[in-house]
Amino acid sequence: MTMALALGRRGLGRCWPNPAVGCVIVREGRVVGRGWTQPGGRPHAETEALLQAGEAARGATAYVTLEPCSHHGQTPPCAKALIDAGVHRVVAAVGDSDGRVAGRGFAMLRDAGVAVSTGVLADEAACDLEGFFLRTEQGRPFVTLKLAASLDGRIATATGESQWITGPQARRVVHAMRARHDAVMVGGGTARADDPSLTVRGLGMDHQPVRIVVSRRIDLPLLGQLARTARDVPVWIAHGHDADPALIETWQGLGARLISCDPDGAQLSPRALLQALGQAGLTQVFCEGGGGLAASLLASDLVDELAMFSAGLALGAEGYPAIGAMGVEALADAARFTLREEHRIGPDLLSLWGRAL
Amino acid sequence: MTMALALGRRGLGRCWPNPAVGCVIVREGRVVGRGWTQPGGRPHAETEALLQAGEAARGATAYVTLEPCSHHGQTPPCAKALIDAGVHRVVAAVGDSDGRVAGRGFAMLRDAGVAVSTGVLADEAACDLEGFFLRTEQGRPFVTLKLAASLDGRIATATGESQWITGPQARRVVHAMRARHDAVMVGGGTARADDPSLTVRGLGMDHQPVRIVVSRRIDLPLLGQLARTARDVPVWIAHGHDADPALIETWQGLGARLISCDPDGAQLSPRALLQALGQAGLTQVFCEGGGGLAASLLASDLVDELAMFSAGLALGAEGYPAIGAMGVEALADAARFTLREEHRIGPDLLSLWGRAL
Repeated sequence: MTMALALGRRGLGRCWPNPAVGCVIVREGRVVGRGWTQPGGRPHAETEALLQAGEAARGATAYVTLEPCSHHGQTPPCAKALIDAGVHRVVAAVGDSDGRVAGRGFAMLRDAGVAVSTGVLADEAACDLEGFFLRTEQGRPFVTLKLAASLDGRIATATGESQWITGPQARRVVHAMRARHDAVMVGGGTARADDPSLTVRGLGMDHQPVRIVVSRRIDLPLLGQLARTARDVPVWIAHGHDADPALIETWQGLGARLISCDPDGAQLSPRALLQALGQAGLTQVFCEGGGGLAASLLASDLVDELAMFSAGLALGAEGYPAIGAMGVEALADAARFTLREEHRIGPDLLSLWGRAL
Repeated sequence: MTMALALGRRGLGRCWPNPAVGCVIVREGRVVGRGWTQPGGRPHAETEALLQAGEAARGATAYVTLEPCSHHGQTPPCAKALIDAGVHRVVAAVGDSDGRVAGRGFAMLRDAGVAVSTGVLADEAACDLEGFFLRTEQGRPFVTLKLAASLDGRIATATGESQWITGPQARRVVHAMRARHDAVMVGGGTARADDPSLTVRGLGMDHQPVRIVVSRRIDLPLLGQLARTARDVPVWIAHGHDADPALIETWQGLGARLISCDPDGAQLSPRALLQALGQAGLTQVFCEGGGGLAASLLASDLVDELAMFSAGLALGAEGYPAIGAMGVEALADAARFTLREEHRIGPDLLSLWGRAL
């Protein structure tokens, strides 16, 4: 199952809206097939592994990180494929919460006389598949908020200088984190101030996550990196219903996808924004700020994981804050997180915080 | 030497202006004497260890963390005491930079036929004795700046609520840190807002560091914790030359020591402040904020170590900043620190940062 989990992770960021599943087929102590959800979500992990195994699947055990599907979608159900291939036993990590599966995959297997066990390394699998489950259950993607700040929580000096607070090693880790997510998201202020490309670079990968800019009025540079490259790597713009139709058309002409969301005060509603992204199929979003977008997601309790890169310098209170105004008056109302991991990344400290339990 | 270093650390915070030295006397593979600088700075470590060893010191080896003193101060020189006791060999970690010793201790020993080696675990000893060396060489104490903040660098909500951002485990570690320093220091704003006692509590210790408040105009509550307890545990007030003489007299009457310092703009000059504290004998000061004092020390490059407690919550940009305005415009001008250690303390993350090399 550990091998199946590792295989499953290869699909992270590449197979949305489908889950990144891993599958290992073992016969008489030998691995005869390995598979993972392929880019775009098909073929499924089981199909891949069965194809490798061929006749060797007969009488074998299949280890899968998620309950095999039981419904005819764009592919025939994996549970049926496992049965047809003559697999004798299926060991799963977790059941599927998708209403079209939810126990029916296991039932289909058992009805055909296949032995089924589940719950093996369930916590690890649930963690890898958290975005898929969140979208299935709540309609929104998993949100990782990345902050890269000075020890006093500043992301730029008073004059706006921000390159670079963290070192090259931390920036490299950020690229690897981007690659594991379906999409990278920033606020309009960051897009204007930094003109970022938001692509994955320096890792020898050709896959690129979707790039999302949240800008109620689509106040974005038309000659910037995102505008110029929107045909090469997807750019989605989340805007308000009241955005200028001419700007919508211009960005569509540049190749961007426009997503209209409900407002909440002067900004877009973070809840409506994430529902729209879930609707569009995203299961995991990597938010890289700026302070306004970070604050609105935190204030709505929509941050599932916080990746904090702390650099060893102090910028003082005039610097730009990593998190904008949140309207927190009492400590008891503040968004709380639990420390999961800490790592030294070159000269910087990375701490990973999850939802408080 | 490792044992001598550990013994030496027992004196930290208790023997200023003298160095916290450790000494172990070994004869024929057996420890015959152990000593460390006693509270108040006397007797010295060597005196203590020789007293324990008695006749067993004859022909023995003495391990000391600092070059034995060679001058007649309030005690006779330790180098002479080691010679008189018949010690055959002295192994030291570091030489003394005090102009009255600086190699003369070693010379006195060698002249008397004692074998001398030095440089054993020198880095560790230099680290423990850094405050003593700084005061000897630059006239100022070593400064540790402690910050306890949210992930976005805030120490209180907009309404001023600050208790508690970090957990009880972190607060306990702070008490242990206070105990290892000669003095605990805060700005006047913190003294007014929090009415802290600044004592070491909950560790079963009777020793207390000096408590220092930096307040140019001595704008401090006369009925607060510090005022009420100034006769039990020392309170020093660093103020400007222009402070109200009536307030100076009042605080003297309460038992406080008043220290007049040069101003620098509207605040006290941080450099003048630390020179005055060095003059008063302090070798290690633990600064606990607030944001204004922290910023002025950082901006003057007077912070030697930064102890950052990060709690897993976000307070947003309206919260009180851990570090006040510093006037940093370019990233290249920002105070830079090097990550030394990171520890989980209950739910919080403690990172220790030293001067960038």
